[in-house]
Amino acid sequence: MRPVEVRLEAGEKLEQLGQGLFIIQHEQGYRFSVDAVLLAGFVEPKPGENIFDLGTGSGVIPLLLWLRENRIRVTGLEIQPRLASQAQRSVLLNGLEDRITIIQGDLRELPEEWLGRWDTVVTNPPFFPGAGAGRINTCREKAVARHEIACTLAEVVAAAGKLLKRKGRFLLIHKPERLPELLELLGRHGFKLSRLAFVHPKENRPANLMLVEAVLGGGKPPLILPPVVMRDEKLNYTPQLEKLFAGGNLFS
Amino acid sequence: MRPVEVRLEAGEKLEQLGQGLFIIQHEQGYRFSVDAVLLAGFVEPKPGENIFDLGTGSGVIPLLLWLRENRIRVTGLEIQPRLASQAQRSVLLNGLEDRITIIQGDLRELPEEWLGRWDTVVTNPPFFPGAGAGRINTCREKAVARHEIACTLAEVVAAAGKLLKRKGRFLLIHKPERLPELLELLGRHGFKLSRLAFVHPKENRPANLMLVEAVLGGGKPPLILPPVVMRDEKLNYTPQLEKLFAGGNLFS
Repeated sequence: MRPVEVRLEAGEKLEQLGQGLFIIQHEQGYRFSVDAVLLAGFVEPKPGENIFDLGTGSGVIPLLLWLRENRIRVTGLEIQPRLASQAQRSVLLNGLEDRITIIQGDLRELPEEWLGRWDTVVTNPPFFPGAGAGRINTCREKAVARHEIACTLAEVVAAAGKLLKRKGRFLLIHKPERLPELLELLGRHGFKLSRLAFVHPKENRPANLMLVEAVLGGGKPPLILPPVVMRDEKLNYTPQLEKLFAGGNLFS
Repeated sequence: MRPVEVRLEAGEKLEQLGQGLFIIQHEQGYRFSVDAVLLAGFVEPKPGENIFDLGTGSGVIPLLLWLRENRIRVTGLEIQPRLASQAQRSVLLNGLEDRITIIQGDLRELPEEWLGRWDTVVTNPPFFPGAGAGRINTCREKAVARHEIACTLAEVVAAAGKLLKRKGRFLLIHKPERLPELLELLGRHGFKLSRLAFVHPKENRPANLMLVEAVLGGGKPPLILPPVVMRDEKLNYTPQLEKLFAGGNLFS
């Protein structure tokens, strides 16, 4: 063990993700949400997998995946330099350089040598349309994370299709109202839906998130998984969510 | 009130649907299932609506819709003569000739004068592929009701698209594994998904049915409704299902 020196910039702080694992986030900038935790609990990483995270933000998904399964390698690509730097420093802080690689770059310009190389691609992409469709967050960093400014859903699906090996799987979280569009894009890029789950804020409310798994050139008929219900009648997290927060998977 | 004489054929019997409403079914032939009840509870018919039921079978869906809302008119089309006759006799038996019209015919050959005339099209179509894909029921009547022998899903969606007025709605129940194909067909025929609900046999089990509403030339972003759970841990019907069986709607 060698001491690691990681510098925090003004406004940055450390948050514990579990088991001595920390993440650097900016108090006023983009911060990870429950979406990342839901996605990580849906992925169920397998030993030896090479995973690519499209738009890794502060690197929360690679860290959460590593918490679930240490024998993976994850590459996180992030276009925003400050977030890529935070993610990179979180990796160093946790001593995970041999497991997690952070790269600052644009998913619309993937280098030739990356194509067809990954087992699994994951993403928690911007959920909302870009400029011109509703109020855009005044913080540029949050806006790029939430709105389709730096990339569209079509570009995200296209990137996943390029990065994956044949039969590789693509997992993402998104808003349910994008389902028809997403299925159309997946079909266009050679994916077949394999698992789909809807997340409901309460048992009797419409879904506000969906978890989607598709296989490139796959495969079996799709499975619509049991509903994920966030909170019970008293607004407490359900046992399923408590299990997730404790590091469990969502469906196994 | 005039006395109505309705003849039952050998093997046919009467089943009560509620409030003095009866249906004629054959003991050994096709009989309606909970699918029809789920679909009726999803449709929520509105006063004055003109509704078309594609493949009405024994006429159960028109009868269940009328139970929910008396001020509708329903036309049921059925290709199988014995089922169409049962449906027609059930209508007469219940004195609903001014509300429900049963026609024996093929949804692939719709008369010109029917096109673009209906507010709402509903269907509980055959769920399974036709010949060559798995075991086909040896009873021809059941087989045609369950397998895509007399019509494919593509032909059902095409027929709905032809029958409906602009902004008319199309509601169906189907197997969840057909979701990607169904959304593709809906898009191809000018529909937009408006409501989608998944039916789970138990809370923690994958969905085995889905309820789909699409609007011709619509409309608003789609809503993924709360999950429908059929039975609780003790295998009793859930309160939601009990309410449905008592004549209530599924989601309101």
